Parts: sequence; C-alpha cells; structure tokens
Amino acid sequence: MNDAKIRLYVEHSLGQGQSIALSREHAHYLFGVMRLSVGAAILLFNGTEDGEWRAEVIVAGKRNGIVKCTFQTQSLQLPPNLWLMFAPIKKSRTDFIVEKATEMGVSCILPVQTDFTNAKRIQLDRLQAHAVEAAEQCGGTFVPRVQDMQPFDKALAELGDRQLLFCDEKMVGEKPIMRKTPGPWAILIGPEGGFSKRERDHLSSLKQSCTISLGPRILRADTAAVAALTIWQMTLGDW
Amino acid sequence: MNDAKIRLYVEHSLGQGQSIALSREHAHYLFGVMRLSVGAAILLFNGTEDGEWRAEVIVAGKRNGIVKCTFQTQSLQLPPNLWLMFAPIKKSRTDFIVEKATEMGVSCILPVQTDFTNAKRIQLDRLQAHAVEAAEQCGGTFVPRVQDMQPFDKALAELGDRQLLFCDEKMVGEKPIMRKTPGPWAILIGPEGGFSKRERDHLSSLKQSCTISLGPRILRADTAAVAALTIWQMTLGDW
Repeated sequence: MNDAKIRLYVEHSLGQGQSIALSREHAHYLFGVMRLSVGAAILLFNGTEDGEWRAEVIVAGKRNGIVKCTFQTQSLQLPPNLWLMFAPIKKSRTDFIVEKATEMGVSCILPVQTDFTNAKRIQLDRLQAHAVEAAEQCGGTFVPRVQDMQPFDKALAELGDRQLLFCDEKMVGEKPIMRKTPGPWAILIGPEGGFSKRERDHLSSLKQSCTISLGPRILRADTAAVAALTIWQMTLGDW
Repeated sequence: MNDAKIRLYVEHSLGQGQSIALSREHAHYLFGVMRLSVGAAILLFNGTEDGEWRAEVIVAGKRNGIVKCTFQTQSLQLPPNLWLMFAPIKKSRTDFIVEKATEMGVSCILPVQTDFTNAKRIQLDRLQAHAVEAAEQCGGTFVPRVQDMQPFDKALAELGDRQLLFCDEKMVGEKPIMRKTPGPWAILIGPEGGFSKRERDHLSSLKQSCTISLGPRILRADTAAVAALTIWQMTLGDW
C-alpha cells in the first residue's frame, strides 16, 4: 500500500529500517508547509540502486526531523544512455531545458558554449536543483547530472564515438528522419541564432553526426529540446 | 533581397505599395527600442492570405510611424487542421503551452475546464498576445486563435467527428502508437492530477478517440503538449 504523495530526493542511503535525518529545508517543507505530522508517509529516492522507498515520519520538528524507511516502492529505473547538449539561453529558458530533459529522460545534461552563445557561465547549483525538482515531480528515480559549461570543441571531443543527433534550423522544411543505430547518443540543440560556419563544418565532419529538421517553423531552443527528445525516445529510447 | 530582421504581426491588409500606420506600441518598439530610422526594412504579416511582406519605414516618430509594403517575402502557410485542447495550469505554464503550440503548428488553441482544473477563467487577451509573439518569432505567417475556456463536456461536443489524440498519464509505460487517420485532429492534454473517472469514461466512449502514452515518467502538462505535438506532426503533420 502506497499512501504517500510527497516525493523527496535525499543524499542518504536508503534501506529497510534506515533512519534519515532531514535537512532543514526538507523539515520546513514537510512540517511547516505541508503540515505533515508523526506517522505520515513520504517517498524518498537518492538516484542510486537503492531506488525509491516509503518512509514514515518519526520526529517532526520545525527545523529538523527524522523519517524511517518502511519498504521499497520502486527499484532504480535508469534513463537511456543519452546526453542533452545545449547552448544556454536566457535564465528561465535554461532552467526549463534542464527540467524538460529530466522529465523526458536523459542520463546527462551538458551546457555548451558556442560562438553565438551569450552566456559566459551557468549557475550549476541552480540547474542541478532544477533537475532534482523535476525528478521529484515526474516520478523518476534517477537525477541526470548537470555538467559545467564547456566550449563547443571540448564538448564535441568528449563524445568519443557516441552518436550525435544535431537539430539544424537551416534544414527547416525537410523531413525529420533519424538513424536507428543503438548505443549511446547525444542530442545537440543550437543557440538562438544557430551555429557559426566553423561549428557547422566541425559538426558535418563528424562521422557519427546525424542531422534532422524539426519542421517548417523555427523552434525556440527549449521547444526544440523537447521535440528532439521526443523523436529520439520514440525511435530508440524507453517510450 | 531580404534585409529585414524584425517581424511584426499587424491587423491591417498588406499588398504592393500599401501604407500602414503603426500602432503606438510598434512605433515605440521599432524607433525607441530598436532604433530603426527612415528607410529601414521590417517584415509584416497579418495571418491572412496576404502572407508576409517586406516594408520600409517612411515616417519614424516617437509614438507613431508609417511603413510601406515593397514586396511579398512569403505566402501564407497554414498549419495542419489541428486543435490543441488543454486544461489551464499555473499562469506561466499556460503562457508556455500557447507559445509552444504556435511554434509547433496548430490551427486553434482551446483551453478546457476539467473536473480537476483549478483555473476558473483565463486571460484571453494575454494568451492571444503570446500566440502573436510566438508567431512573430518562429517565422510563421499564421496565428492560431485562442478560444475562451469551455467546460469539458461542451469542448468535447465541439469535436464533431474530428479525431482526438488523448495523452493518458495512466498509460505510463506503454508504447506511444497513434492511428494514422488523415483529416482534422485535436490533441487533448490533461490537467495535473489527471482526468476524473467521469471524464475518462466520456473519453473512452468517443469512437474517434485514440489514446497514447508519453513514456515511463509523468510529464508536466507543458512538456506533454510539446511531446504530443511532435508525435502528431511527425506522423500526420507538416514536419
């Protein structure tokens, strides 16, 4: 019987009878905001093979609390071995891309600095917190890691022989057809304003690169990310 | 030669030599914010068969201005005959759904009040303005009309024999497979918290209803809208 509604990500091992001291933020949320009391049930996951556990409130304080694992409710479900690479855009849309990538199911999120990227740095902690929140809300047991931003060439070098799905706004109007090679993949979403000539040449020189179009209208980067992830998940992923 | 970067939607007929008096907002944007002067070129569209026109600035005032159409740059491109029906959620996510639906290509946007919808009304003017802005930015020549919110049963009655793609979060984990019947379609995205038993029974009683799943994680309504639109556009639409 699963009577718990609230799901929290914790950095603590989970297992039968395991007690967990809550962080101040979690205690405030559970007991201050959501008004849970002793005996109430929540769900916990930590992104590892521990999976998801039902836990009961043992101590409910204003700034602290203890919960105890009662039984496992889900085993760890890993997403496909899929990276989302994107050029950070305006703050709120970057947050959105991280949230959407987590919901859609990726293993890793890599912000990339391109020739036309305005952002000089990203707030890694904030983006990782968005991934945690999205995992809590979508029922997933895994949280993709957000990497620090890397320059375009360095990010491409990290691909190794990983397949690359490259969404090209210059191909607007052509059919979105993708190669069905199994194995690890990455999806690359360009910045608003597209890639530079140099970057486009680099991309077409990669033998693992597969270019698709996303319809006749120019999509914003966050829309393009969800659309490309949908196409990939339908073709090769866990949908 | 198309030297214009800025695209604006106007409620005015467009054609060879046609002069258009700009609204105060457009004049402020073009001459105050973007610093255009007499002779500069912009692109105009009005969502009708006039399509898109290049226009030159004739008068550049602080609160007014006149532009004159020089030549047509695009003919009207109608999106597929596809409605997006959704239960309004938090304000910013509702704005997002309207923006995404416009970029992805729908003919009409219908907010629907379900048993579990918290919103009692929508700000129709604001949502329509979001559709206009999205059309200006995605290069489209058509602006989908946003309808006023309707109760669930009334909205379904409007379908007639239009095919209905219903994205069911209760089917999480099953394959997203859709029927390839051509003709008019509608996509229905449920509210957070899903549909009520009564609504689900009503939906399964409709013979034109086709149910798909959107993967093993529970998507937020705005993510689900983009994912469902991608699947539809890939299968039956203009991608």
